[in-house]
Amino acid sequence: METNTNRKSYKRLARMPASFHKECVNLKQYWNDRQTKFEKTLDKALPKKNVRPATIHEAMRYSLFAGGKRLRPILCLASAEAVGGPVQNAFPLACAVECIHTYSLIHDDLPCMDDDDLRRGKPTSHKVYGEGLAVLAGDGLLTIAFELVARCPGWPRYKVADLVKELSQSSGSQGLIGGQVVDLESEGKKISIEDLRYIHQNKTSALITSSIRLGAMSGNATSAQLKTLTLFGKSLGLAFQVIDDILDITQTSAELGKSAGKDLKVQKATYPSLLGMVGAQKEAARLTKQAMNALKPLGKRGERLREIAEYMLARKN
Amino acid sequence: METNTNRKSYKRLARMPASFHKECVNLKQYWNDRQTKFEKTLDKALPKKNVRPATIHEAMRYSLFAGGKRLRPILCLASAEAVGGPVQNAFPLACAVECIHTYSLIHDDLPCMDDDDLRRGKPTSHKVYGEGLAVLAGDGLLTIAFELVARCPGWPRYKVADLVKELSQSSGSQGLIGGQVVDLESEGKKISIEDLRYIHQNKTSALITSSIRLGAMSGNATSAQLKTLTLFGKSLGLAFQVIDDILDITQTSAELGKSAGKDLKVQKATYPSLLGMVGAQKEAARLTKQAMNALKPLGKRGERLREIAEYMLARKN
Repeated sequence: METNTNRKSYKRLARMPASFHKECVNLKQYWNDRQTKFEKTLDKALPKKNVRPATIHEAMRYSLFAGGKRLRPILCLASAEAVGGPVQNAFPLACAVECIHTYSLIHDDLPCMDDDDLRRGKPTSHKVYGEGLAVLAGDGLLTIAFELVARCPGWPRYKVADLVKELSQSSGSQGLIGGQVVDLESEGKKISIEDLRYIHQNKTSALITSSIRLGAMSGNATSAQLKTLTLFGKSLGLAFQVIDDILDITQTSAELGKSAGKDLKVQKATYPSLLGMVGAQKEAARLTKQAMNALKPLGKRGERLREIAEYMLARKN
Repeated sequence: METNTNRKSYKRLARMPASFHKECVNLKQYWNDRQTKFEKTLDKALPKKNVRPATIHEAMRYSLFAGGKRLRPILCLASAEAVGGPVQNAFPLACAVECIHTYSLIHDDLPCMDDDDLRRGKPTSHKVYGEGLAVLAGDGLLTIAFELVARCPGWPRYKVADLVKELSQSSGSQGLIGGQVVDLESEGKKISIEDLRYIHQNKTSALITSSIRLGAMSGNATSAQLKTLTLFGKSLGLAFQVIDDILDITQTSAELGKSAGKDLKVQKATYPSLLGMVGAQKEAARLTKQAMNALKPLGKRGERLREIAEYMLARKN
């Protein structure tokens, strides 16, 4: 069944100039190329399945290679390129942010948190390995993320210490974890739009922004470039989560690869529940436009990131 | 009730030369002084209780300030001093290892792992804050540990990247987490002494060794000094765990500040269960002697670490 949102997105896409559709092909090629290299790097970066204790490495790999879109890694790589850095520098950091993202999904899916059975179309970690091992697989991914950051040589403007600080702060108790805490505490409660924004800023936007910032750091970005990309990341990250909220309502579980309609079921406050569907879609469009505007100072170099942002607004899962 | 082990420890202590008792007083003063400074540093290093989201910072602090002996931080500080480094350098690292240790306790105590209600004489994190927040408080402590490491300036022989690698490897899936995995998988099963040693080497000894190594790194240790202290740490860490196994049987919950007799109840393989009580005590003594011998190359500078090791063998909780 085609929903209203789908129709609107199609209309939106149809309004795009011809150059956009051409870019989309290019973006697809770009994405495929970078993702293939990323998957290989990630595979090499993680202990093999048979390294003792085998179960934890199997569990870490199960969730890490469950077919994610690799949005954060792609943003990290594209950001490095946007500031003129060699993309190669950014790969260990792209691996690190994906490890953090995956650990947060494993822990969020636990019965004591969001209690989800399905993730990326597959049974969640605790469904396959049991809760104890799922907690430990998450811990393992969180820990190895910092080891991966420490493998970077550092660059003239950014030392390894700066990279570690960046990642630990965006994923810490005043970042990603903080967002999950407020989200957990808000379930079944009526919350304000400010609280909802706090959740999204921290639970989603913080790591997306950090992925972009870490990429830029690996490209030895100037402080002006880093500022520009930070503004872009913050708007993009919020837009991404608003769209996620919308898709939870409009798409099926099969389309999403995770349990759809979950937010409504647990009476979770979302943008559509607070602003209505139209309001939420307007908010997503506003935030995406804000992200595009933020990119302007980068000129032509920001094109790829603009394309990625466009793709994120049009996505269906 | 005085147990056989208690009597033996007292006898052992009584056999010590007079100088040992004098040292103990000095050690007590040393420990008190360093611990007081450490507690202040740790308090400053962690977000205050009222920083948003308040519950997570309250939960992180609840477990972190639950009255631990601070063995790992003290070893870290003493190790820095043993290689002639200014002790001040080692404080952020001492805080980091204590955050890692505390996170591992919070996660180990969860119902899906060891399912413990009592820790350091207080209800465990999930008993007070619920399972979801306990998982997140652990995640928060694990994450902030790396932020604390990144606050170090680095030293001529050791950069921040070396410190991050050290901590992530000793606490990762082939270190502390790996030990917990094998421990979890071994419950109720008959395991070999080699498997038991693997568990102890990783679950306990790895972080103790790392505490000592990080302290030495902060003191700009030579590679020979670092090697010496690594050998010391490995033996000490194993001795510590053998004694832990023994105390679980011989002491009461009140004496231990955690649920005693737990290992027997869940049929956990321990040194006493595999080697008998006398065999386990011999093993503890052997490992402690091995640790003492490892210290010899440090000469007089290793005295404080020797005292700490002696104290650890004689401890009652």
